[in-house]
Amino acid sequence: MTRTIAQQAELALLLEVATTPKPGNVDRHRDHDDLRFEHFLAGAVGASEGLRDLADPDGPPIGVAFEQAVAGMSDQSGGNTQFGGLLLLAPLVRAAALGELTPERATTVAEGTGVEDAAGFYRAFEHVDVAVADPPDDMDALDVRRGSDAVPEIRERGLSLSDVLARSTDHDGIAREWTSGFERTFDAADQLVSRDGPLPDRAADVFLELLAADPDTFVAINHGEETAREVRGRAEAAREGDTDPETLADELVAEGINPGTTADMLAGGLFVALERGAEV
Amino acid sequence: MTRTIAQQAELALLLEVATTPKPGNVDRHRDHDDLRFEHFLAGAVGASEGLRDLADPDGPPIGVAFEQAVAGMSDQSGGNTQFGGLLLLAPLVRAAALGELTPERATTVAEGTGVEDAAGFYRAFEHVDVAVADPPDDMDALDVRRGSDAVPEIRERGLSLSDVLARSTDHDGIAREWTSGFERTFDAADQLVSRDGPLPDRAADVFLELLAADPDTFVAINHGEETAREVRGRAEAAREGDTDPETLADELVAEGINPGTTADMLAGGLFVALERGAEV
Repeated sequence: MTRTIAQQAELALLLEVATTPKPGNVDRHRDHDDLRFEHFLAGAVGASEGLRDLADPDGPPIGVAFEQAVAGMSDQSGGNTQFGGLLLLAPLVRAAALGELTPERATTVAEGTGVEDAAGFYRAFEHVDVAVADPPDDMDALDVRRGSDAVPEIRERGLSLSDVLARSTDHDGIAREWTSGFERTFDAADQLVSRDGPLPDRAADVFLELLAADPDTFVAINHGEETAREVRGRAEAAREGDTDPETLADELVAEGINPGTTADMLAGGLFVALERGAEV
Repeated sequence: MTRTIAQQAELALLLEVATTPKPGNVDRHRDHDDLRFEHFLAGAVGASEGLRDLADPDGPPIGVAFEQAVAGMSDQSGGNTQFGGLLLLAPLVRAAALGELTPERATTVAEGTGVEDAAGFYRAFEHVDVAVADPPDDMDALDVRRGSDAVPEIRERGLSLSDVLARSTDHDGIAREWTSGFERTFDAADQLVSRDGPLPDRAADVFLELLAADPDTFVAINHGEETAREVRGRAEAAREGDTDPETLADELVAEGINPGTTADMLAGGLFVALERGAEV
């Protein structure tokens, strides 16, 4: 008996939130005021039906299954828990259902999305408040905050989900993964698979490395680019042993700084690692 | 969108392990040496397919679905995580699928089990090592540790799962729930529903009350009746404020004393509470 692909994805979400320390994010030992550990547990469980559709090679378009996963995820009182994680998992899970999970296959899935996927993505924003960047002036009609009101425009322009995300790569690390071969996600998975010790401990190290490597785009959206760069530097100091990662975790939570995109990337990396045989 | 019955059961298992302090058990802040938090996450996710069958009113006999849940639960390296919790959830989940979740309906489901349920229960012991009491001398043929080897004897005697559990009520708190109207489980649910605050905090209080009320049968099996009574007394002292529950939790984990049956009962109570509208 082994876990199904959908179960692996759900477990990845659970292992992500359990990973500690994961500076700035809700983890096994830290909550934000209104966003707590149990909200992530309920979010992962609620997403499971949508994950099953993603894991069905003959299932609905991944953007439609993604919307279903987000709807289920939102059935808790904490708000947005795993929107970005699910957006990253969507092409990965479908790719795993179609064959060996490789960057190439995930990219093929991403590039194969169409208008229906984009419509599902826009509708997903109606289930939960997601912090997003302001769109460029000429793109108001495609502001994701318009939710399903933007769908006619999507259809008019014939935009795929891949097209939509390609317009967000400058301010969204998950969109960047979609359009650059999921490079950081698969790199994280390689690190997770190649090391020893309990998987959540490996995941804590990989999280810190991801955060030290690139400014978190969710921090940039909520607190500005300068803060995102500063947080990256503090993570690097922690990775190099100049600060205790536990201290950094306490500090960032106290400052209300939440590097959520990096946590989403860890969830994606954990899924790939589980699919490649990482054991719990 | 609301969670399915199977999702509620899975979430109950996750909320149970996240509840802290939960003296002696793995919780959000404590691990045992070889049995860690992530094993329970994987156990809950792995059980989900079996829980779906339990939540299907036209599904297989509950003992058969229970075996499937245990098989999935066992797909992690920590060993037995939620065997007792699943045994308690089995009739509760099926009852919820059949109508309003009441002690009466759960009892009807339990009493409606047959030989196939008993056979599934015995086979479930082949998936994972479960600490159990020695059977009485005249019941060697029905020792659960015989696994499927005992099934011919079960068929010969025409024993239902309810019959089998009725023979274990003196040393197994879950068997006692099956044969006494699930009284402690529904009482726990009433307490969980009627209080305020985050659900895991309410659950920590209810766990301590359960542990203070009756000696834990899993502790009795592993450490003897005397230790189980002593642990009950220490829980009562903590409940009355004479000891910090966090201290008791640290002590029991250090002593390797694991009141697992009480944790299983909390999982059952959390499921009933979620079905009755407790929010996360």
